[in-house]
Amino acid sequence: MKVKISQRMQKPDFQADFLADILKAAADPSIISFAGGLPNPASFPIEEMEAATQKVLQRDGVRALQYNSAQGYLPLREYICKRYKEKQNIDFSPNEIIITNGSQQALDMFSSVMIDPGDEIMVENPSYLAALQSFHLYDPVVLPIDLNPDGIDCDMLEETLKTHKPQFIYVIPNFQNPTGLTYSDAVREKAAEILRKSDCLVLEDNPYGELRYAGRAGKSFATLLGEQCCELGTFSKIVSPGMRIGWIACKIPEVLEKLLAYKSTMDLHTNIFCQMVLEQYLQDNDLDAHVEKCVEIYKEKAEFMMACMDKYFPEGTTFTRPEGGMFIWVTLPEGVKAVDVQYKAIEKGIAVCAGDPFFETERGVRSMRLNFSNSTNEAMEKGIKILSEVIAEMS
Amino acid sequence: MKVKISQRMQKPDFQADFLADILKAAADPSIISFAGGLPNPASFPIEEMEAATQKVLQRDGVRALQYNSAQGYLPLREYICKRYKEKQNIDFSPNEIIITNGSQQALDMFSSVMIDPGDEIMVENPSYLAALQSFHLYDPVVLPIDLNPDGIDCDMLEETLKTHKPQFIYVIPNFQNPTGLTYSDAVREKAAEILRKSDCLVLEDNPYGELRYAGRAGKSFATLLGEQCCELGTFSKIVSPGMRIGWIACKIPEVLEKLLAYKSTMDLHTNIFCQMVLEQYLQDNDLDAHVEKCVEIYKEKAEFMMACMDKYFPEGTTFTRPEGGMFIWVTLPEGVKAVDVQYKAIEKGIAVCAGDPFFETERGVRSMRLNFSNSTNEAMEKGIKILSEVIAEMS
Repeated sequence: MKVKISQRMQKPDFQADFLADILKAAADPSIISFAGGLPNPASFPIEEMEAATQKVLQRDGVRALQYNSAQGYLPLREYICKRYKEKQNIDFSPNEIIITNGSQQALDMFSSVMIDPGDEIMVENPSYLAALQSFHLYDPVVLPIDLNPDGIDCDMLEETLKTHKPQFIYVIPNFQNPTGLTYSDAVREKAAEILRKSDCLVLEDNPYGELRYAGRAGKSFATLLGEQCCELGTFSKIVSPGMRIGWIACKIPEVLEKLLAYKSTMDLHTNIFCQMVLEQYLQDNDLDAHVEKCVEIYKEKAEFMMACMDKYFPEGTTFTRPEGGMFIWVTLPEGVKAVDVQYKAIEKGIAVCAGDPFFETERGVRSMRLNFSNSTNEAMEKGIKILSEVIAEMS
Repeated sequence: MKVKISQRMQKPDFQADFLADILKAAADPSIISFAGGLPNPASFPIEEMEAATQKVLQRDGVRALQYNSAQGYLPLREYICKRYKEKQNIDFSPNEIIITNGSQQALDMFSSVMIDPGDEIMVENPSYLAALQSFHLYDPVVLPIDLNPDGIDCDMLEETLKTHKPQFIYVIPNFQNPTGLTYSDAVREKAAEILRKSDCLVLEDNPYGELRYAGRAGKSFATLLGEQCCELGTFSKIVSPGMRIGWIACKIPEVLEKLLAYKSTMDLHTNIFCQMVLEQYLQDNDLDAHVEKCVEIYKEKAEFMMACMDKYFPEGTTFTRPEGGMFIWVTLPEGVKAVDVQYKAIEKGIAVCAGDPFFETERGVRSMRLNFSNSTNEAMEKGIKILSEVIAEMS
């Protein structure tokens, strides 16, 4: 059968091609994987979900199985607003929230509404690879803004805004993916001040914000910039990724209306069964206590991995020391390419993720992302030791 | 805040605009609605879902809450293949199935992979309005092919293929939405013969196929055309729409690969919690018996609505007599526009769906779609009576 695939889907997808091999390898249970970003299953509230499901189906089974609205389950949107207010002092109304199939879908929705081919957008350099994939589908000109240890490079941001008119900037200010870095208060204030003078929207992604095990939370751009900032959120990292429940919060009526129209055309609505079960779980359980439990697990994991890296990594290998989240960003010694380490390591049963797919343009970089949330300590020590040998051999 | 919305989302959406008013009105519980396409909640297996959820969470809770693969839960894909074989003698392998958020998402996926701006596609005239919305996002030239009482107009199909090179044709051969019509065996064979000579793919949608209460099933285009036909399917109409579990089945490796890549970029994967619960439900219960129960409900509803229409409709009003599905297609007397009836009826508490948004080009049509699956008999008789008075007044 002779078929013509659309131009859109014929474009090379560096991110996807790069990851295909490594993900395949990582699916092998004999592999020790630091490549993914899976929550630790020890944190999953399985019994509580069982109780919540029972309650929902007994009380309101017809609603849980019937069609629902594109915007999402109102009590869940109300819960999200309440939590924004309590945790970050941000005012959103339930009408400003759309429930999505994970925040990944919200990335696509926002891209579809905001990007015409050739439009400029800004991203952190490096940035979340699956966000880059979403954006690329819509053919923007991507302007990467460097990331310093204390957050986005404000000089570069300011310079870029002098000569460009980006539609939006995509940022992950807390425990960034892939670097694990967090913006300082000063950088948040400064970046907001620069952005405030422009028509550039801010798309703030905050999947890991609650997973903080050191330091103190900074202000979100939604607090600093009001309606200029749209927020992405998800329950994937603090409750369950398998349910695919995320959201986008947006205060600009015109954008919100188009997001909702697009969501409706895409898949009518997010599965209401899981929305209702999750909401019941949130009503009946203390999410703060649950998040605290996750944080304890992740803190112990992060500290253990950093201790292993301190112990085994060869001279000249450095890494970020995150205050939360799931990732550590490693910089290899001069002259060592992360892709070479990645391919050598997988031969020895260790999966890591070279930094390349997180960059819009740089290739052959010296950085790689390690995930610490999903390995046993035993596997972690073994994996870091072998990885260290691979790096040492290549230095 | 000054924002620029993408051209894509600024395009007028006739379907959406048309329906906004009526859907808002239909959400009012005091309205008798024949406008939607909701399954009858009496058919929802609520207790069985509770048992299935309990089993899944107790046996495999971590998997139900963790990230999963873009393609979907393998046992569910295996079940779908088994049912294709048993019910329609179609051979699909699990690798040829992708689980989607309802078949609505599969419509978008297929459009994204197949349509470049300006590409031609064919649709039945009239066709499912939310499919038209999906297609329009990708800017095709839509070629409507008339629908006769026995199925698609084969002469028009043949003529169109002489002078055009459509990428695909979208068809709903069983209890079509909106008309309720079903293709005859002769039309299926003839249309397949015509299509076989072309490079035009067939996207066959079959949400209602199992809801047959009279007559006998015809061959699917997947049987007649093999890999030239991609199938859309869903559990929405036979189990639960709220879970958002549908699929696309495709035998062309190049298309399948792109569908999967796009699905992964869109939302990583369909919620695995519901996939696993649904699969457990299907293992532990007799779907045939459940479908039979649905069919009984719908048969009784359809017959009751047709009896009311025979009794009350004024002279000159005709309608299709479907053998299954959820819809009846009404043709109003000469000179009466369906939109006028729609707006007059809603004032009197009755929601109907004028035919206009199901057509690519025709406006001010005399046809309207009535849904019979989701009203009590009492409401149905009252509604049809009032609707008849409205039609009579306008004739």
